[in-house]
Amino acid sequence: MAKDRKQPRPKAETPKGFRDYFGAEVAGRKAMLDQIAEVYHRYGFDALESSAVETVEALGKYLPDVDRPNAGVFAWQEDAEGDKPGDWLALRYDLTAPLARVYAQHRNDLPTPYRRYAMGQVWRNEKPGPGRYRQFYQCDADTVGSASMAADAEICAMLCDTLEAVGIPRGDYIVRVNNRKVLNGVLETMGLDDDEKRAAVLRTIDKFDKVGEAGVRELLGKGRLDVSGAYIDGVGLSDAQAEPVIAFLLAGKVVDRRLIDALASAKDMPKGIQAHIQAARDAGDIYAAKGLGIEAESFAVRNRMMLNHLQEIIGESTVGAEGVDELKQIVNLLDAQDYGSDRIVIDSSVVRGLGYYTGPVFEAELTFEITDEKGRPRQFGSVAGGGRYDDLVKRFTGQEVPATGISIGVDRLLAALHAKGRIEATEAGPVVVTVMDRDRMADYQAMVAELRNAGIRAEVYLGNPKNFGNQLKYADKRNAPVAVIEGGDEKAKGVVQIKDLVLGARIAASATHDEWKSQPAQFEVPRAELVGQVRRILTGEG
Amino acid sequence: MAKDRKQPRPKAETPKGFRDYFGAEVAGRKAMLDQIAEVYHRYGFDALESSAVETVEALGKYLPDVDRPNAGVFAWQEDAEGDKPGDWLALRYDLTAPLARVYAQHRNDLPTPYRRYAMGQVWRNEKPGPGRYRQFYQCDADTVGSASMAADAEICAMLCDTLEAVGIPRGDYIVRVNNRKVLNGVLETMGLDDDEKRAAVLRTIDKFDKVGEAGVRELLGKGRLDVSGAYIDGVGLSDAQAEPVIAFLLAGKVVDRRLIDALASAKDMPKGIQAHIQAARDAGDIYAAKGLGIEAESFAVRNRMMLNHLQEIIGESTVGAEGVDELKQIVNLLDAQDYGSDRIVIDSSVVRGLGYYTGPVFEAELTFEITDEKGRPRQFGSVAGGGRYDDLVKRFTGQEVPATGISIGVDRLLAALHAKGRIEATEAGPVVVTVMDRDRMADYQAMVAELRNAGIRAEVYLGNPKNFGNQLKYADKRNAPVAVIEGGDEKAKGVVQIKDLVLGARIAASATHDEWKSQPAQFEVPRAELVGQVRRILTGEG
Repeated sequence: MAKDRKQPRPKAETPKGFRDYFGAEVAGRKAMLDQIAEVYHRYGFDALESSAVETVEALGKYLPDVDRPNAGVFAWQEDAEGDKPGDWLALRYDLTAPLARVYAQHRNDLPTPYRRYAMGQVWRNEKPGPGRYRQFYQCDADTVGSASMAADAEICAMLCDTLEAVGIPRGDYIVRVNNRKVLNGVLETMGLDDDEKRAAVLRTIDKFDKVGEAGVRELLGKGRLDVSGAYIDGVGLSDAQAEPVIAFLLAGKVVDRRLIDALASAKDMPKGIQAHIQAARDAGDIYAAKGLGIEAESFAVRNRMMLNHLQEIIGESTVGAEGVDELKQIVNLLDAQDYGSDRIVIDSSVVRGLGYYTGPVFEAELTFEITDEKGRPRQFGSVAGGGRYDDLVKRFTGQEVPATGISIGVDRLLAALHAKGRIEATEAGPVVVTVMDRDRMADYQAMVAELRNAGIRAEVYLGNPKNFGNQLKYADKRNAPVAVIEGGDEKAKGVVQIKDLVLGARIAASATHDEWKSQPAQFEVPRAELVGQVRRILTGEG
Repeated sequence: MAKDRKQPRPKAETPKGFRDYFGAEVAGRKAMLDQIAEVYHRYGFDALESSAVETVEALGKYLPDVDRPNAGVFAWQEDAEGDKPGDWLALRYDLTAPLARVYAQHRNDLPTPYRRYAMGQVWRNEKPGPGRYRQFYQCDADTVGSASMAADAEICAMLCDTLEAVGIPRGDYIVRVNNRKVLNGVLETMGLDDDEKRAAVLRTIDKFDKVGEAGVRELLGKGRLDVSGAYIDGVGLSDAQAEPVIAFLLAGKVVDRRLIDALASAKDMPKGIQAHIQAARDAGDIYAAKGLGIEAESFAVRNRMMLNHLQEIIGESTVGAEGVDELKQIVNLLDAQDYGSDRIVIDSSVVRGLGYYTGPVFEAELTFEITDEKGRPRQFGSVAGGGRYDDLVKRFTGQEVPATGISIGVDRLLAALHAKGRIEATEAGPVVVTVMDRDRMADYQAMVAELRNAGIRAEVYLGNPKNFGNQLKYADKRNAPVAVIEGGDEKAKGVVQIKDLVLGARIAASATHDEWKSQPAQFEVPRAELVGQVRRILTGEG
């Protein structure tokens, strides 16, 4: 009733960085969420749906870019109550920080350990970009109250099962595991104990994928001219100080080289495999040796070599040794369960941006290539990440509550399956009952009621029925498999016309009509046979 | 890494008016959403998931309490970009206003009519109260681009089907239908053409349920002392002006009285039914005659009588006559489809608070009694509402786009099913494999892996295994049906202990243990039979 006729018309647009999802997109995501929930549930995790809105205080400041105003969240202040200023509220930016709040709030009623899964939207107040939205889905599983590395190992195993359940076959993904404590050990050997500098080193390492070894060296030192032309300040380490960090980052490359050399010098290697080894040597990457036929064993060896190499790098550091030992426990447990190292590998370059991780960190990457919007092939990259965050509940309670978990980026995973053509891009539309005589709407409604009662998706055309061509165009746009027609003549004769639109489209597309002669795309049936004949077409039974 | 050690600990609380949902609550809601989606989809509606965040401009001001600051939404301003002030964004308060935006934005790509369903959270910045939250689910279906009353009739029929699909049997609900145009006709006969006064009358009528006839009279006139002690200003109508509004509001009561009298004077009425009629006469309400055995016919008569009575009330008003005619079309279409008037009735007291309705309005009410938190019986009330809103898309495009739809309040519907005991309050927990020897974690993980691979929900205990009693308490808290035990002795013998916790609880609760002697709650089986024996217990097969 509030009409502001003088106001200009509102713009019909989502806010920048937000979008809508239609039909098959919604159905595809729902199917994936259901598949993931089934695995999580079978692993003993219970559903939790926490509120989308939290106090800013409860969320804490853990987003990668903590320097920015608003710290990356959408926030607002509640109205004041008398003299008391209103609380600051915000949309959750992930499902982990809210879990810590939930566990602290309900810990007396919840079992310990508390295994929970959650799926829902999260919001980030970040600059949107192509394919980068400010609202997206996460699908998390976490175990709160267990310090055991068995909890972390289980999360990694479940992540593999989940990826395979949604349609990523073994070999098309890899779960990378690292440990924050190992990095802390490296920082300890450097004598770096300034918290802010440590955080800055962490953020720098996280940029390794983007800026490479040389870029990381610059950013650990004086700074670097960004591609955008802006100068990014460095952490201010000397070259000598930066060296152990670089060595840690490159540990995987060093081990790869050693492993490839060892494989190359093996005497009894068949010729075909030698070519793979040469390819891996050229690429400086053991993953380039995929298809070796000896993958599992090689990768298992690689994990052992990584653990030894990391042990060397952290030297005498106690926390570093703890980190390496934790990784060893995880690898042992997973090996025992046949989650071979061809699926789960130790990788020291995995950091995970979020500030709350304290021990093991995980990342799942899809290893197949896709074609990007400019037609270039590229690796698909990360679809899930997580780790151990032993201090997040302690913020609230003061008591240590260890926790670990994983978060799957459902929208990215869907994009990957789309890129591989493994998800239906459209869904079957309803049977459309057309309206030949608007006074007999009740007759047409009766037809759709019969079809629906037989479990067949159906609807009557509800637009202006005057132009019959528009009704058929509508059926086409709806992706309808069948249209039903009953004019006055049909009514009088007690029949209906059934139009097989799928067959019709095939005939229209075919060069010669001859082959379809025996199968007319439109035919007349007694009204009483409507449901049976429509079902015959839908099930494809002759 | 950003640690503020000097800061006080954050409170582990949801913001006021928000809550978390656990395990069975989440599962119950998901099951209901799936059931509703199935019906909507079968009726030909396509899924849409629009963004949770909209510009304030796009949402418009349609909430009932438009006078309040913030207009009932959670809103915030985006950061400025240079000189350009940031847009105001808000969380959606329903799924209808966003649909209008979506349709206006994508109308060239969408079919017309566009039938869509949507399910998701909405947020209202209202004062929370008991059972009244600021985040809740809605589950909507709308047809955009159809002016036909067949669209409205279909929505009403689908609403009935949906309620029955989620477990509300016929007779336990009623769909009430009214038309804003009839009310506008009444206002026209009164000569009231001031838009703000019309809106005020509408808001007053909407309070009929709360304040009764006398209260409405006061609020239409000078005003009224609220129960809170505050004085609520009235609309300022004279008694004579208020009379037609009251007559309109009471139309149902008048018709009820006439119908009851007609039934009472019928000669051939069996004795049992006469008692029902007397009860209805005492209550002044035809619904009190439920169980008459002649319900369907009586209510059908009632709808015809209502249409005639409303025709009288609106007098010469054109818009009023249009409204009555629309109601007549809806009733005729529904009657033809056997959606009898025992399920769908004309009720002039239905207003629906939202400001955007322009024609028919609907409301589904559950008619059974529940016991409230204070142990008093009360009617459950409204669980769904909707109507026709022909101007909502026009706000954006300037072109008339008729639309109609329904919104189901899923959380209220769930509460109703809970109150009737028709939803499981707990769900079965996982099989818990206990840890007798922490060095053999890989063995226990292997057991749960076998169980999970057989489709059985299972987990290994991941807490501190030192105290075995705690492990069984955990299994109990998890509602676990079975616990598995394998200590060193069992391992050496190649067996495991299986503990049937459901049977154990039954034995513990039973007065005499004798009857259970033949069925021990804990027994030993060869390790190789673990999965088979656990399945035997879970399926209840001897």
